[in-house]
Amino acid sequence: MLAEIKGINEECGIFAIWGHEKAAEMTYYGLHALQHRGQEGAGIVTTDGETLHVHKGLGLLNDVLSEGEFSKLPGQSAIGHVLYGAEGGSGFENVQPLVFRSSKTSMAIAHNGNLVNAHALKNQLEAQGSILQTTSDTELLAHLIKRSGHLEMSEAITAALQMIKGSYAFSLLTEDQLFIALDPRGIRPLSIGRLGEAYVIASETCAFDLIGATYEREVQPGELITISDEGLQTQTFSTPMRRKLCAMEYVYFSRPDSDLNGVNVHASRKIMGKELAKEVPVVADVVTGVPDSSISAAIGFSEESGIPYELGLIKNRYVGRTFIQPSQELREQGVKMKLSAVRGLVDGKRVVMVDDSIVRGTTSKRIVRLLKEAGAKEVHVRIASPPMNNPCFYGIDTSNKGELIAANHTVEEIREIIGADSLAFLSNEALERSIVADRDMEQHGICNACFTGNYPTEIYPDTVLPAYKA
Amino acid sequence: MLAEIKGINEECGIFAIWGHEKAAEMTYYGLHALQHRGQEGAGIVTTDGETLHVHKGLGLLNDVLSEGEFSKLPGQSAIGHVLYGAEGGSGFENVQPLVFRSSKTSMAIAHNGNLVNAHALKNQLEAQGSILQTTSDTELLAHLIKRSGHLEMSEAITAALQMIKGSYAFSLLTEDQLFIALDPRGIRPLSIGRLGEAYVIASETCAFDLIGATYEREVQPGELITISDEGLQTQTFSTPMRRKLCAMEYVYFSRPDSDLNGVNVHASRKIMGKELAKEVPVVADVVTGVPDSSISAAIGFSEESGIPYELGLIKNRYVGRTFIQPSQELREQGVKMKLSAVRGLVDGKRVVMVDDSIVRGTTSKRIVRLLKEAGAKEVHVRIASPPMNNPCFYGIDTSNKGELIAANHTVEEIREIIGADSLAFLSNEALERSIVADRDMEQHGICNACFTGNYPTEIYPDTVLPAYKA
Amino acid sequence: MLAEIKGINEECGIFAIWGHEKAAEMTYYGLHALQHRGQEGAGIVTTDGETLHVHKGLGLLNDVLSEGEFSKLPGQSAIGHVLYGAEGGSGFENVQPLVFRSSKTSMAIAHNGNLVNAHALKNQLEAQGSILQTTSDTELLAHLIKRSGHLEMSEAITAALQMIKGSYAFSLLTEDQLFIALDPRGIRPLSIGRLGEAYVIASETCAFDLIGATYEREVQPGELITISDEGLQTQTFSTPMRRKLCAMEYVYFSRPDSDLNGVNVHASRKIMGKELAKEVPVVADVVTGVPDSSISAAIGFSEESGIPYELGLIKNRYVGRTFIQPSQELREQGVKMKLSAVRGLVDGKRVVMVDDSIVRGTTSKRIVRLLKEAGAKEVHVRIASPPMNNPCFYGIDTSNKGELIAANHTVEEIREIIGADSLAFLSNEALERSIVADRDMEQHGICNACFTGNYPTEIYPDTVLPAYKA
Amino acid sequence: MLAEIKGINEECGIFAIWGHEKAAEMTYYGLHALQHRGQEGAGIVTTDGETLHVHKGLGLLNDVLSEGEFSKLPGQSAIGHVLYGAEGGSGFENVQPLVFRSSKTSMAIAHNGNLVNAHALKNQLEAQGSILQTTSDTELLAHLIKRSGHLEMSEAITAALQMIKGSYAFSLLTEDQLFIALDPRGIRPLSIGRLGEAYVIASETCAFDLIGATYEREVQPGELITISDEGLQTQTFSTPMRRKLCAMEYVYFSRPDSDLNGVNVHASRKIMGKELAKEVPVVADVVTGVPDSSISAAIGFSEESGIPYELGLIKNRYVGRTFIQPSQELREQGVKMKLSAVRGLVDGKRVVMVDDSIVRGTTSKRIVRLLKEAGAKEVHVRIASPPMNNPCFYGIDTSNKGELIAANHTVEEIREIIGADSLAFLSNEALERSIVADRDMEQHGICNACFTGNYPTEIYPDTVLPAYKA
Repeated sequence: MLAEIKGINEECGIFAIWGHEKAAEMTYYGLHALQHRGQEGAGIVTTDGETLHVHKGLGLLNDVLSEGEFSKLPGQSAIGHVLYGAEGGSGFENVQPLVFRSSKTSMAIAHNGNLVNAHALKNQLEAQGSILQTTSDTELLAHLIKRSGHLEMSEAITAALQMIKGSYAFSLLTEDQLFIALDPRGIRPLSIGRLGEAYVIASETCAFDLIGATYEREVQPGELITISDEGLQTQTFSTPMRRKLCAMEYVYFSRPDSDLNGVNVHASRKIMGKELAKEVPVVADVVTGVPDSSISAAIGFSEESGIPYELGLIKNRYVGRTFIQPSQELREQGVKMKLSAVRGLVDGKRVVMVDDSIVRGTTSKRIVRLLKEAGAKEVHVRIASPPMNNPCFYGIDTSNKGELIAANHTVEEIREIIGADSLAFLSNEALERSIVADRDMEQHGICNACFTGNYPTEIYPDTVLPAYKA
Repeated sequence: MLAEIKGINEECGIFAIWGHEKAAEMTYYGLHALQHRGQEGAGIVTTDGETLHVHKGLGLLNDVLSEGEFSKLPGQSAIGHVLYGAEGGSGFENVQPLVFRSSKTSMAIAHNGNLVNAHALKNQLEAQGSILQTTSDTELLAHLIKRSGHLEMSEAITAALQMIKGSYAFSLLTEDQLFIALDPRGIRPLSIGRLGEAYVIASETCAFDLIGATYEREVQPGELITISDEGLQTQTFSTPMRRKLCAMEYVYFSRPDSDLNGVNVHASRKIMGKELAKEVPVVADVVTGVPDSSISAAIGFSEESGIPYELGLIKNRYVGRTFIQPSQELREQGVKMKLSAVRGLVDGKRVVMVDDSIVRGTTSKRIVRLLKEAGAKEVHVRIASPPMNNPCFYGIDTSNKGELIAANHTVEEIREIIGADSLAFLSNEALERSIVADRDMEQHGICNACFTGNYPTEIYPDTVLPAYKA
Repeated sequence: MLAEIKGINEECGIFAIWGHEKAAEMTYYGLHALQHRGQEGAGIVTTDGETLHVHKGLGLLNDVLSEGEFSKLPGQSAIGHVLYGAEGGSGFENVQPLVFRSSKTSMAIAHNGNLVNAHALKNQLEAQGSILQTTSDTELLAHLIKRSGHLEMSEAITAALQMIKGSYAFSLLTEDQLFIALDPRGIRPLSIGRLGEAYVIASETCAFDLIGATYEREVQPGELITISDEGLQTQTFSTPMRRKLCAMEYVYFSRPDSDLNGVNVHASRKIMGKELAKEVPVVADVVTGVPDSSISAAIGFSEESGIPYELGLIKNRYVGRTFIQPSQELREQGVKMKLSAVRGLVDGKRVVMVDDSIVRGTTSKRIVRLLKEAGAKEVHVRIASPPMNNPCFYGIDTSNKGELIAANHTVEEIREIIGADSLAFLSNEALERSIVADRDMEQHGICNACFTGNYPTEIYPDTVLPAYKA
Repeated sequence: MLAEIKGINEECGIFAIWGHEKAAEMTYYGLHALQHRGQEGAGIVTTDGETLHVHKGLGLLNDVLSEGEFSKLPGQSAIGHVLYGAEGGSGFENVQPLVFRSSKTSMAIAHNGNLVNAHALKNQLEAQGSILQTTSDTELLAHLIKRSGHLEMSEAITAALQMIKGSYAFSLLTEDQLFIALDPRGIRPLSIGRLGEAYVIASETCAFDLIGATYEREVQPGELITISDEGLQTQTFSTPMRRKLCAMEYVYFSRPDSDLNGVNVHASRKIMGKELAKEVPVVADVVTGVPDSSISAAIGFSEESGIPYELGLIKNRYVGRTFIQPSQELREQGVKMKLSAVRGLVDGKRVVMVDDSIVRGTTSKRIVRLLKEAGAKEVHVRIASPPMNNPCFYGIDTSNKGELIAANHTVEEIREIIGADSLAFLSNEALERSIVADRDMEQHGICNACFTGNYPTEIYPDTVLPAYKA
């Protein structure tokens, strides 16, 4: 939802379960908790020990799966996926998990992340006579596994993982094994838990809470986990490196009730808000946050500053994909959807508007205008993250550098563009403090490449931005 | 949504517009802002001066209307309605506006409220040979108008209004006139505004904000407004009485960004929270609210008490009507939808859980358990309204007296039933203070019959509760 | 289907059953056999002895009812209806059976036919303060029953039937009785049968065949049948008159496997074809019929004349309501749907094209051209009914007089308009012989008003043609 | 439709067009005429010279494509496909045309037929590291082309065609070329025509008639046609062999208005019926055919024998895929769908029931019983083709040998099983006469392997029957 307002998009959420009587149903509920990570497609693949059973489709999980379909997904183990994809995107064939059937071992793969050497790998595979049927990185892994020459699945996967670069959290299901892999930097979040005897894996811990599972630990950077009826085995397929978990997961993407790498998202956001109030204070009458992702930071700002928090902006709950958008003409006449400013709360007031980030600046501009039209005397914008100067190559569909407002303008210029009375960002140091706190940087380091340009992996000249793949 | 959690339901929202080029579209957007008042059906009727054009259906506004349909709704005036209806309810024939065609004047009627003498009126009409095709009160008005014997529409309506008792906000559209009426006590909210030259009327002012209209004034208790190409005329059809605007509109139903009778809903809720913190304070570590309706009160409680506000409870945004509900078995195993408690924020803490009201107590019990399972050391429940002892006969689908937990148990008993460590309610006086403040009681009085039993109209032995009508 | 080609349309089919465990299902299957009589809407109402249960909707029976819905239609008795209605027609409120609930006896009514005094009755009812909610004649009957003043249902119905004029076959279901009535002339077909102990009533006997029921007898003109747990009772509500069963039911509307008033439809059509070959013979190479309704007559023509019958015209089976129609431009380029001429069979041949009737002539013109484009050397059109000179007021949606080609042109002129090498019609005498044969005219007389102008009832100056009602 | 009754199914129909302004629309209409060849899926791929545009889906053409979608299929050339597939079949991924994108030349392929060496090819490709994503033979061709090593498309295709055995009619579209290929025996039908300047190719000529195209010639066995902006080029990829066009196309599959290899299907069926009347005459009162495919043969039988033809069996036009099937219990009580016997025409009569073929015998048994229950005194079954003793490996989904009643029983045994008074089949010689007549056998030979066991290609021990592929 807000994704649409802002133009930043996460690519995908994954869930897996091994050894549960109702594997498909649990995957459904698990994916449900991850729905915010992808609304373009959803899929579940189960294994009954003999065969992979598939159900997937375009749209929200609810559109894709109806109750009767669980019976067509038998088996005690499953993987699932929710897909983000650009509008008018790549279509059904890209909905994951992708399934590759074979007269020997079949496999289903679901993936969250982005491979930076995808382009080169694709060219190489096609030159060898392979046919690629999708535009997704996920298929590359399948071909690399198939062509590795190894008969043993875990060896074939390890060989394939050596060849790919970038960010990834993979789950791969065969008839009788489940494999889980995280990239060497741990750029994407991935946790493992237990539900009774069963193993569960999810992009975010909120999926565990919803199904009543217990969190156990993070999947480690460079770790390949194999789960089968013999239990769980782990191995490391890369040399140890400092973790670089995506900071934007804390700032914007993840659900506030998730714990990423042991840190609660809402709590970290509230600290960002407090740090913001310390770093760039302002004299004002009310604090308000842009729903939903900035509410936590706004409350933190209010608590630190003592300025009362108000619901100055409200989101329309019923805006969905089938909603009829007002025409340009009507929008100019004042018809607005998604977000309204509450006149009764901002009229005549000096307002601090806390937002989590600025990408192109168009949304900020619109919200400042909304507040002013509702009578706000002053609007002070406080952003709970640093200026976003650099594109992300690791699975976040921001924009290319040309579209990032902070890559092309000074803070003062941005302030003028968005029409705010003042504008300030959080510093990189404060952002890091809000997330890492006093914990070990080896284990809890974050990727802030979009703010600093320090990419934790090689970047190739032909690296394709996620948004331009399809 | 939350309605489903709680089991209180408002009946309906109305919107009307006179003299706008895009009457149907504006009504669509206006109803959109009122969608929370009814999700079972929606309808729009326009007039082009010659003929009434109708489009309506079961479901959410988005399900009912798609873009192409505006062209089938020509004309510069329209009325619209969103319907609340019990599950498995009365079906398509009850979706409003109801349209009554005739070789002379046709009329479309939409209604929010409940007539307390509906039963007697219905019997009387049937005895006279009338055929009633719906179970809605709205149809009664049509028959009374038709049988009044008056040829002049406004006279026929006035005669009919004399015969009905209870709460009502009516809009009635003919080929060339729009009529708006509010019951003599003004139990339901109804506002009038301007959009350029056009008149707009809505159950809540949030509809004005969304379309960019300007609020003018409240429709007055006992007022009948006639709008036509000759402009707006007003008349009073009952003797003046103290206003009795439904308190539950402030406590729970209305959107926080609406102003009812000049009072912002969020602001009044925040004061309820502050009053609550004053009246029944508690020593605790965090304050949390039950989303969405109790967030404002929880923030008020936090500000007054100094106990930090946290997102201890989070609502799943993607729970919709097509969502596959977990079976009883899965729910017992811990699968939960709709609401999750955030372990990272409540574990080991003394939690103040602020809610707006308690009806049957089942939801409160579930939420207390959620919080305790997530590690809360203590859960102190604070309700931002008084104990609800009496059924509502004015359009709120609470329960009958037998189901109202506060009608049958002491506060201490309720505390035990819901498993809280402490429980306290707001007093009637504080509730009134939160809404009325220092304004004139004649104009700003509230109906608190569900808390006090003081009904502002006669109640008949055969008065039918809304929930039992269909 | 063909209806669309030709522009003649029957209004509706009815089915009823009393005393069967699976009343709703049997009604579904019975209506299925009658689907050709109406494709715009379908509905079933059952009674379980206490309450009427309704399910209906716009579209084909299959669109309206899915399997799970039978459980929502409990009870051992039911009535059902398939609705014909002009495109863009009157909408959901006109879908039958219409249900009129009341605190005393509720009733559901389904109807096939057309009342010639509907206009006058409607004005009279409105003047008395009644509200009419549909444009269908069916509702008039309900109001007349309600206002009759009789408490006993059969008396009230008899009183109401005295007031209506025209053609009608009614079924009326209350909580504990089923009433069946046929107009005094028996213009519409209606048969009664048995399915085990249960009674079944249907517009055509093909419905009995499909469900395995046994035909018993015709419902008689002017007969009112009452069925309840006390069994079947019959009474006559009008003075006996010669039967006037619609000839077009034999010529075009009814299914070839139905027996109407004891005469098989296919057999009577074949005789029409034979009579046609005798009356207006022609020298030719092949005989072909316009599918589906003219195949029987074409075979009869072939058998009598000795000219071989060929499938010179073929209908596309998959043309349905969702089919994308070719644009005018494409049609002019030769894209044709619905009907193709088979070049291999008509190229270089003298073709006799047998059709059942001509209304506006546009279809005949198109088919002649199709055959000529496919190489036919000569096309001789033979019509298995007389020229249609007069509008029908009894439920057949032909056209008004201005649109009937035979009302405005000589046979020779029509031949020229449609581009045929010769054209001839069946005589009225031969048509009557084909249907009545040597049976008693009192019992087996037919209405041929559309060919002769001899209407079997009064016609009022304000009688409304069915097509102009909605 | 009837396919369901009989249990024989054709696999697929193909259509292609090159050089027409409305390529997608023409393909839609062309496929429409071929809908009887496959109802499980449909798809269209166009090229605008730069990119392939795809639209496909499960279900009937009408379900898959709606009007707005033509604009998403730009370009002047297209291929299309209608898919037959077993119920619960292989799903969306098998819907054709299959599209194989590549950074160089992309291709879309549609196919009608069955490869007898598919199993071996698949194993070989997988051993080389290829990933096969569908269960269809079509994908094999793509891989063989990709791995051929030839850069020139037509060379790569020729090389691939050398490796496949069996029956096939392929169309293959790249960004700038269209390729058409027919197997060396010409087992499947495939014709080429012109529509103005454009080239059109279709499985049956009825597709040409519908769009107004002119038939030019058959695609020849072993011919590879290349169409591009340079025009049409043809080459032969195999040594010339006698044609072996599937006899069942004439007997049952193709539309009666199609000409296959210059012979009209209806005409050949009528001759089969005449030959049948000569070879195995019978004394009877009426002849009736099983609709739709046996009507032509029944009319031929009637003309030859002088026994009048009657519509003794009638098919319900509205039986579709969403129709609620009667339960076993209801079927036993006499509820029947699809086919009814017309009592008025068969009661007390000696009936000749002409059918096109017998596969398992279950349908014949049911129809004989229908006729007897409707009063037929005697039922004489005459089959317009020889006993079907052998499975088909060329794309006809009959049954394996164990299920073919004629492979396991004598004619007398079959007669007893189906309950007929007499039973006789057409001879192989007469069948051949009916189709080939006096034309050249090299050009007009037919494949009658299912009747004789003389397969026109090698058959491998692991050849997979079409029905068992998915």
